[in-house]
Amino acid sequence: ACRSCSGAPSVARAAVLKESSSLPEDMPQIKGYDFNQGVDHRALLQSFLTTGFQASSFGQAVQEINKMIEKRLEPVQEEQESCDSHSSASGCTIFLGYTSNLISSGVRESIRYLAQHRMVDVIVTTAGGIEEDFIKCLAPTYLGEFSLKGKELRQQGINRIGNLLVPNDNYCKFEDWLMPILDQMVLEQKTEGTHWTPSKMIHRLGKEINNPDSVYYWAYKNDIPVFSPALTDGSLGDMIYFHSYKNPGLVLDIVEDIRRLNSKAVFAKSTGMIILGGGLVKHHIANANLMRNGADFAVFVNTGQEFDGSDSGARPDEAISWGKIRMDASPVKVYADASIVFPLLVAETFAHNAARLIKEKNSD
Amino acid sequence: ACRSCSGAPSVARAAVLKESSSLPEDMPQIKGYDFNQGVDHRALLQSFLTTGFQASSFGQAVQEINKMIEKRLEPVQEEQESCDSHSSASGCTIFLGYTSNLISSGVRESIRYLAQHRMVDVIVTTAGGIEEDFIKCLAPTYLGEFSLKGKELRQQGINRIGNLLVPNDNYCKFEDWLMPILDQMVLEQKTEGTHWTPSKMIHRLGKEINNPDSVYYWAYKNDIPVFSPALTDGSLGDMIYFHSYKNPGLVLDIVEDIRRLNSKAVFAKSTGMIILGGGLVKHHIANANLMRNGADFAVFVNTGQEFDGSDSGARPDEAISWGKIRMDASPVKVYADASIVFPLLVAETFAHNAARLIKEKNSD
Amino acid sequence: ACRSCSGAPSVARAAVLKESSSLPEDMPQIKGYDFNQGVDHRALLQSFLTTGFQASSFGQAVQEINKMIEKRLEPVQEEQESCDSHSSASGCTIFLGYTSNLISSGVRESIRYLAQHRMVDVIVTTAGGIEEDFIKCLAPTYLGEFSLKGKELRQQGINRIGNLLVPNDNYCKFEDWLMPILDQMVLEQKTEGTHWTPSKMIHRLGKEINNPDSVYYWAYKNDIPVFSPALTDGSLGDMIYFHSYKNPGLVLDIVEDIRRLNSKAVFAKSTGMIILGGGLVKHHIANANLMRNGADFAVFVNTGQEFDGSDSGARPDEAISWGKIRMDASPVKVYADASIVFPLLVAETFAHNAARLIKEKNSD
Amino acid sequence: ACRSCSGAPSVARAAVLKESSSLPEDMPQIKGYDFNQGVDHRALLQSFLTTGFQASSFGQAVQEINKMIEKRLEPVQEEQESCDSHSSASGCTIFLGYTSNLISSGVRESIRYLAQHRMVDVIVTTAGGIEEDFIKCLAPTYLGEFSLKGKELRQQGINRIGNLLVPNDNYCKFEDWLMPILDQMVLEQKTEGTHWTPSKMIHRLGKEINNPDSVYYWAYKNDIPVFSPALTDGSLGDMIYFHSYKNPGLVLDIVEDIRRLNSKAVFAKSTGMIILGGGLVKHHIANANLMRNGADFAVFVNTGQEFDGSDSGARPDEAISWGKIRMDASPVKVYADASIVFPLLVAETFAHNAARLIKEKNSD
Repeated sequence: ACRSCSGAPSVARAAVLKESSSLPEDMPQIKGYDFNQGVDHRALLQSFLTTGFQASSFGQAVQEINKMIEKRLEPVQEEQESCDSHSSASGCTIFLGYTSNLISSGVRESIRYLAQHRMVDVIVTTAGGIEEDFIKCLAPTYLGEFSLKGKELRQQGINRIGNLLVPNDNYCKFEDWLMPILDQMVLEQKTEGTHWTPSKMIHRLGKEINNPDSVYYWAYKNDIPVFSPALTDGSLGDMIYFHSYKNPGLVLDIVEDIRRLNSKAVFAKSTGMIILGGGLVKHHIANANLMRNGADFAVFVNTGQEFDGSDSGARPDEAISWGKIRMDASPVKVYADASIVFPLLVAETFAHNAARLIKEKNSD
Repeated sequence: ACRSCSGAPSVARAAVLKESSSLPEDMPQIKGYDFNQGVDHRALLQSFLTTGFQASSFGQAVQEINKMIEKRLEPVQEEQESCDSHSSASGCTIFLGYTSNLISSGVRESIRYLAQHRMVDVIVTTAGGIEEDFIKCLAPTYLGEFSLKGKELRQQGINRIGNLLVPNDNYCKFEDWLMPILDQMVLEQKTEGTHWTPSKMIHRLGKEINNPDSVYYWAYKNDIPVFSPALTDGSLGDMIYFHSYKNPGLVLDIVEDIRRLNSKAVFAKSTGMIILGGGLVKHHIANANLMRNGADFAVFVNTGQEFDGSDSGARPDEAISWGKIRMDASPVKVYADASIVFPLLVAETFAHNAARLIKEKNSD
Repeated sequence: ACRSCSGAPSVARAAVLKESSSLPEDMPQIKGYDFNQGVDHRALLQSFLTTGFQASSFGQAVQEINKMIEKRLEPVQEEQESCDSHSSASGCTIFLGYTSNLISSGVRESIRYLAQHRMVDVIVTTAGGIEEDFIKCLAPTYLGEFSLKGKELRQQGINRIGNLLVPNDNYCKFEDWLMPILDQMVLEQKTEGTHWTPSKMIHRLGKEINNPDSVYYWAYKNDIPVFSPALTDGSLGDMIYFHSYKNPGLVLDIVEDIRRLNSKAVFAKSTGMIILGGGLVKHHIANANLMRNGADFAVFVNTGQEFDGSDSGARPDEAISWGKIRMDASPVKVYADASIVFPLLVAETFAHNAARLIKEKNSD
Repeated sequence: ACRSCSGAPSVARAAVLKESSSLPEDMPQIKGYDFNQGVDHRALLQSFLTTGFQASSFGQAVQEINKMIEKRLEPVQEEQESCDSHSSASGCTIFLGYTSNLISSGVRESIRYLAQHRMVDVIVTTAGGIEEDFIKCLAPTYLGEFSLKGKELRQQGINRIGNLLVPNDNYCKFEDWLMPILDQMVLEQKTEGTHWTPSKMIHRLGKEINNPDSVYYWAYKNDIPVFSPALTDGSLGDMIYFHSYKNPGLVLDIVEDIRRLNSKAVFAKSTGMIILGGGLVKHHIANANLMRNGADFAVFVNTGQEFDGSDSGARPDEAISWGKIRMDASPVKVYADASIVFPLLVAETFAHNAARLIKEKNSD
């Protein structure tokens, strides 16, 4: 079929002009958004599916989360509900994980929306992912720059998180708020035998903050368990450490929490994982889903790469080898900073289906 | 101001509870989009400015490009126009650069839109960034997966570009289209003394393709010069190589083009650089802008990092040290795959201002 | 000083040929290794300091760790030792952190060497960083490929960690080993009132494994505390979860451990941090060093980037803003996979100084 | 085979304790270097093969390059040599590509060593990769820091390349050196009809610099062709641009060079590609090797990732789909900054085999 270029080295011609087998007819063709039709953001985001690279991954992530939502909205049979107290009332138990920095950023408002309307069922985050939410109820975080000098900032008592700035006074305010609660927790432990775990402490803090801007206020209101096994690794740990000198004895047990988390996966009808960032939050949710021989749906959004063998950077296909994602699932990883991608994902999934999701919740 | 935790090590208390200086009153507070107000994509994208991390960089990139557009729309004085034939009629000469893969992806349609409406003034890309546009006029590119096996694909004659697939027959079609044009170019060189350069060849190919889907058709129509000094590094080079065996003698000179490109920067009233990806396209535009002691505006979108000392990954601040960006400029780098970010940037800048921009063009 | 190119646009000439101020005379000149002198690996690695990019960062990391070692070898005064039971006997308390995958890899042998000879004082790792060490005492890990298919691996019961493979039987062997120890731990808790924490459990497991290939055997022997607050996040958690069904009641408290870890930083004469990878291990060590108003020395080796605002990718300068590294310190980050860099760092630092370090330890 | 944990959810037990098929007996076990045997750098680097992650990739790259070297040393039959003037006298034609920043760094000395002893056959680099080598013969490059401020540097006339600094006076010296050569080139073009191409110009400059520190001096001496199709994209282009105002007419043709480069691949007995960094240099060498239906051996060292669909970040397997690497080859990519990895690779390959390689060269 190819024209002959007489004279040119034949090996080169043959290599360059190798004929191709035909591709399946239904294979999607690459085609981006045509701005001649005006700026229609929804249509633009839908065109991402046929744009290629991470735009296509974004489009696939929208589809994967919408599958979780459809499954979630399926009617659940009475029998199933009654026979097992652990069993979820939802057709799909959605695990949401995120690293601390996302709570520091404006992604917090997207997460708060999901908690407020009980659109997710289980949350896993790090210590900073807990405390920064409460601290933001006490004082604001600011936009700075990545290149601000650490020494000058320290001299002024300003902490940097990427291009965000948090005045150190915010942590002083956090101490003022937290210390009496810690006193109360120790008292309850001693007088009522309360067996504290990270998830119970977070639940209590969510109640105490009593502020509708808080993710964990809504998690408390909507009974969404929040797991953070290394809860001492942050400002909360600093305060617990200080507090231990004037009022020692608090115990935070991580064994009861692992049983509780695993049960959420084991007794779910189906599960979906939405994980922003890597490290503990990614591993902890995936490991819980191993207990059910794999999640049914999964979306990862992070900037990690597989080449260094980290769990953070591993492709979802690695999780399939472990039984953390089902062999027949179609998990999606979007290689991107979640600050851009997650609000857009929420727009095209949970928020787009808000009416149906909120109705379902209220009819529980 | 901070509560005392009597007993805790004082060094720890002092370090953790260091007081902070107050931040400027007008410093932006971090606040994300509130989906309780419904899904308003424009408002969501505007909230990125106060979301932090790369969402904020996106917001700053929108502002930077809109500054280019406002400058572009400023009235140009008659005198200036007349006194220098090189001088641009536009208040801001916009240089757009992108790597080949973006033309393979659906970002091509965003770029084509900019060329079609003469919203940019100079284009720099690699050989693949040229030929893939023409090839797409001849046959489609498909969506595949990153993990498809190279050996199996080669056996079927299917070429992979990330998660895109291009049947090798497309390149055979390209050969059929290109060879007669190369014959003609050699003829003109011999008979009319045409001094071919990469930009002149691209101009001619844009004319020949005569297809409104093509970026370079519109670049031809709107007299937007397209520079690609290593034009032989791709399928075009393969074809030129083959063609040289049956009809030798074509000369492509890169000296005339560097003079033409530099003049675009030197004689501009002000300049803006929008560069997607790294390598040649990033360096070539920035180097041209050194000729005018730096671009006035700059937006980089890429995934490169500075730690390996590459120009691709260098922050805009490195370009300031070279005089490629003005010392008083506020350049923005968005660390992201352009397939997600560029269509959204176009939506919030050029397409949002389309009415004013297209009017300006037509009144030239 | 520059030649005139008469005729060329003067703005271009002035911009390109801007004269420069002179640099300080002692500024190091870039010069790489000259292989004409033969292959002298030590000299080659020393030439990295003047090679630039991450080679220079490697050279600076060698210097920074060697500063920790010199400080460590400084004689400690009798008085100081006696007055405070918490006080370290070492002139520099070295905190070593690493992610789980490095124990899965052959970096484990470098870490084991450091623990064996008590060259580090405090270890922080994740659950996988604990269990994989024990599991390797029971059965080997293999070299595979990043691209092996998850589905096929799961069908064969082979788990993938980057390009490593771990047969699932290894985890069955781990269960067989661990269950009786868990029984014993519950018994001791009930009968002796043992208050278990992650660090105490790791200490016990190090004793039980009784194998000189194990990192934690040596940590046990040499009384190096190992912290892992989220110890339930891995196979250990799976086993604890299973075990809780037949023999419930085990409590793992993370409060006592945070006090113990922080004390290691607070009462140290000086501290150094060597952190491989990101996530929990990076944050946990740095947060403990905030308790002493910052570490004196720091080396980070990881592949994370700052643009997404993650703590994993943050430059050491961000930690200075928080008071986690001293304002006058000269911390070093090497952007690299630790599997290549850490063994080479150990060669040029701890192992190079082995004679002096081991002598010091034995004379304790 | 696994112990029963009666009571625990059976689905969890079954998922976690899935039995595994046995792995092939000859599969390498992961084992790192044991520093108890002292610091033996060669043994340490050999242990990388069984260390996993990028250490293993390094070990595989050593093997792959040593395969190129063995092939190169195979005796070549007389007949073959005589029948085709294009045919290489070497059993394996090695293409070396690198980006400009590596010449700015101390990797230059490793590259110079390879050129000096004719251990590679074809070089491809960017304009900066050419000019920085010559400029270093005129004045040194210095070690700085990534975080130095662009504005302050520009005010002092100091250019930054990652953590390197180049005083702008170096470029003035380059101009002084280059301008008379450009005059001479134009003269020869006009009087002798010299048809200049980038590779011919680099050859001439290598002769003119006449300095054994220069890569291109040795390329000139040893007749190693150096290709750089976008030779105008850098300081050379600036000087050519200035020069064109006082002595116009120079033509640099890229067509003749593509034919010359492709011939090097087509007529080789076998080929190996060693490519440091991405962009033009990676694509150009791989594209040339498509002309022979793929390179036989390939090693890529770069920090690019595939997720953005860039050629820079593409895994070697993508090149197999295009026919740029043979289907039966075992190409290796090392994800690392070449400043650390390349000198170590040279140590374990070319320099280790120096005696045999230099003998072979001299007996040509």
